[in-house]
Parts: sequence; C-alpha cells; structure tokens
Amino acid sequence: MIINLANINKINYKSKNTYANRGMNLEHDINISNEYYKNNDKAYIYKKPTPIKLVNVDYKKSKITEAYFETPSTTDYNGIYKSKYIDFEAKETNSKTSFSLANIHEHQIKHLINVKNHGAIAFIIVRFTPIGETYLLDINDLEYFLKNEQRKSIPINFFQKYAKIIKTKYSPRLDYLEVVDNIYFGGNDNDEKKK
Amino acid sequence: MIINLANINKINYKSKNTYANRGMNLEHDINISNEYYKNNDKAYIYKKPTPIKLVNVDYKKSKITEAYFETPSTTDYNGIYKSKYIDFEAKETNSKTSFSLANIHEHQIKHLINVKNHGAIAFIIVRFTPIGETYLLDINDLEYFLKNEQRKSIPINFFQKYAKIIKTKYSPRLDYLEVVDNIYFGGNDNDEKKK
Repeated sequence: MIINLANINKINYKSKNTYANRGMNLEHDINISNEYYKNNDKAYIYKKPTPIKLVNVDYKKSKITEAYFETPSTTDYNGIYKSKYIDFEAKETNSKTSFSLANIHEHQIKHLINVKNHGAIAFIIVRFTPIGETYLLDINDLEYFLKNEQRKSIPINFFQKYAKIIKTKYSPRLDYLEVVDNIYFGGNDNDEKKK
Repeated sequence: MIINLANINKINYKSKNTYANRGMNLEHDINISNEYYKNNDKAYIYKKPTPIKLVNVDYKKSKITEAYFETPSTTDYNGIYKSKYIDFEAKETNSKTSFSLANIHEHQIKHLINVKNHGAIAFIIVRFTPIGETYLLDINDLEYFLKNEQRKSIPINFFQKYAKIIKTKYSPRLDYLEVVDNIYFGGNDNDEKKK
C-alpha cells in the first residue's frame, strides 16, 4: 500500500477510511493550488513534510524499517507571495456548527502569532466539510477569539463574521491567494471594511 | 539506534561514519543557531523535515515499517527575519579547494532563484570542513557563476571573492544573520562594496 506522505498527518488512525479521505481533500486542494501558483510563477508555497523519527534504517538498502510520526514543530504550509512571508495551517472539520480548537496544537498557534509579529501573513484555513465551506481566518482574529472566549471550539458564526470564504474553482482549485489579496493587499473585495 | 531525522539527508550512505558526522556538524550548528534566534525572538527559521515515502504503516501501533528517503523538492531551511522571507540550503564539503555543484540539486537552485525573484533573501551556506571556513553565498552570485562558468565545482577563491565568511561563536554558534544583516540590510560591514 502506497500512502502519500503529504497526507499522512491528516489521517486519524482510529477512524475509518472515510475520515482519512475527508481529511485529505482540503490538503489535496491546497497542494494542487500551490502547484498551480508555482507553475504560474505567482507564489512559492509548499507543504512541509511530516516529521518522522527514524529508529531503524537499513543503510545498504536505503530502507527505513522502523520509524514513528512526530508532532510538527510549526505549521504545515509556508512560502513567499508578493515578497511577503506567508504561513498557515489547514484543517477540516466534520462539524457543521463549530471548529474544535483541539485540531490545532497550541505551539502552532504560537508560531503563527510569532511570525505575524515579525511581518508575516499568517492565518488558518478551515473547511466545514459537511457544508462544503472553506474559510480563511487571520491569526489576529484567532488570537482575539482565544483571548476573549473560554470555549474550546470556534462557532461557525465567528467564521461567518470574521473570516473570508475561499471559493472552490476549477483551477486553481482553492484560490486562497485571491482572499489573501483581498485581506492583506487591499484587493477588490470592499463589501466589508476590514477591521 | 536512534538517528536524528534532522540530519539524515546529510548522511552519505556509502561512506564511513566520519562522513556522516562531518555532514552533521554544519547542520547542527545551524539548528542550534535557529533555536537561539527563536528563543530571542529574532527570527523564525526552521529546517524542513526530510521527505519520506511511506510504503507500509502499522496503524494499530502508529508504526512505520517500510519507508524510503525522498529527494527534497525545495531547500532545507526557510523562515522569516525582519519581515523578509528567507530561504537557503546548507552544505559541507571535505574539499579544501572547491565546492562540487553535485552537492546541490538543480531544482533547489531553481527554487532559490524563483523565491529571490519574488523578493526573498536567498543564499547557500557552504562549509569547507578541512579548513573550518563557512561561507554565505547569495543566490545572485551563484547564478552568476553558473551562467559564466563551465566548471562543475566552485573554486574556493570564488567564495573568497564573492561570499562572506560566517563566524563561529559561542552563542549563536553560527551567526549567519549577522552576515545577512551586512549583505541585505546595510549592516556595518562596509569594507567591501556590495555589487
């Protein structure tokens, strides 16, 4: 069985295949969008490989025979767009009503805050899979929620109010840089005044 | 045997342990310097995990039982410093006289050129291990060499002329951001006019 490494950290080991597939869709959409951006010389954004701790390696065969998944120290994606460092984490939820904060490690949020403080464009992408809606939420808004709310999950109406919908297209599949243009580069989306 | 994943792609599988250790020193120096920069809120630069192709995984034990090393699609390091996207590759050579271009993949050089064209700070760090000298060579200078020279290796006098020495200190061990300051942020190092 060949497993695409790029997707492996989205797989919930205890769950059924349906969960795995569900988790892989957003990631796949982002990966092929990044490929499109790269091929069009628009942006260079990559998914970082999942860190793996090697325990046994057969060097004669260049074969790893025992290894374990590690927790990533940062976020999944980073790169450059319009001279800006861009950094984000992407997650899917099976809920229709809220996004559980258990989906994101605390050190990943800290990382996003750190790079934002140093001038990065930093955000999370969250897909509510059952309703097919994908949002881009700026780290400042996530930070605002964490500071002001005791809840362990972010209700969808918070996304509806503060995040931006990312449209699914033919190509690029998930044009999140269009939303980035609107939020961070003063794009055409003036229907709502940015805080 | 526990192998630090961070170092694994520096290991020449056919060579003796001495080669492996040699390859790990520069990487180790950069990793602890990045840790220092992070702890001092100076920069957020990380080594990307080595990509690994999974073939067999025992999901009950969350254990990888067969996997292989893949060629990285980009460079080893990237992050943010003073609001700029920074991207580089680091290599050691056992030669005293030249750095073989076989040490760097063509697509890694292409990647560095691409991100540089989009506003990144992009370079390579090369250590001539036998003489203990570590250089930072801007991608423009590397590109210049590749365009104008037929040689398959860069002689050390090219580094002496166009690159900058990175000093080894106590902490941070390899203060390459000091050199970055000089080259890209108009630091105090005015002894040579930047092309």
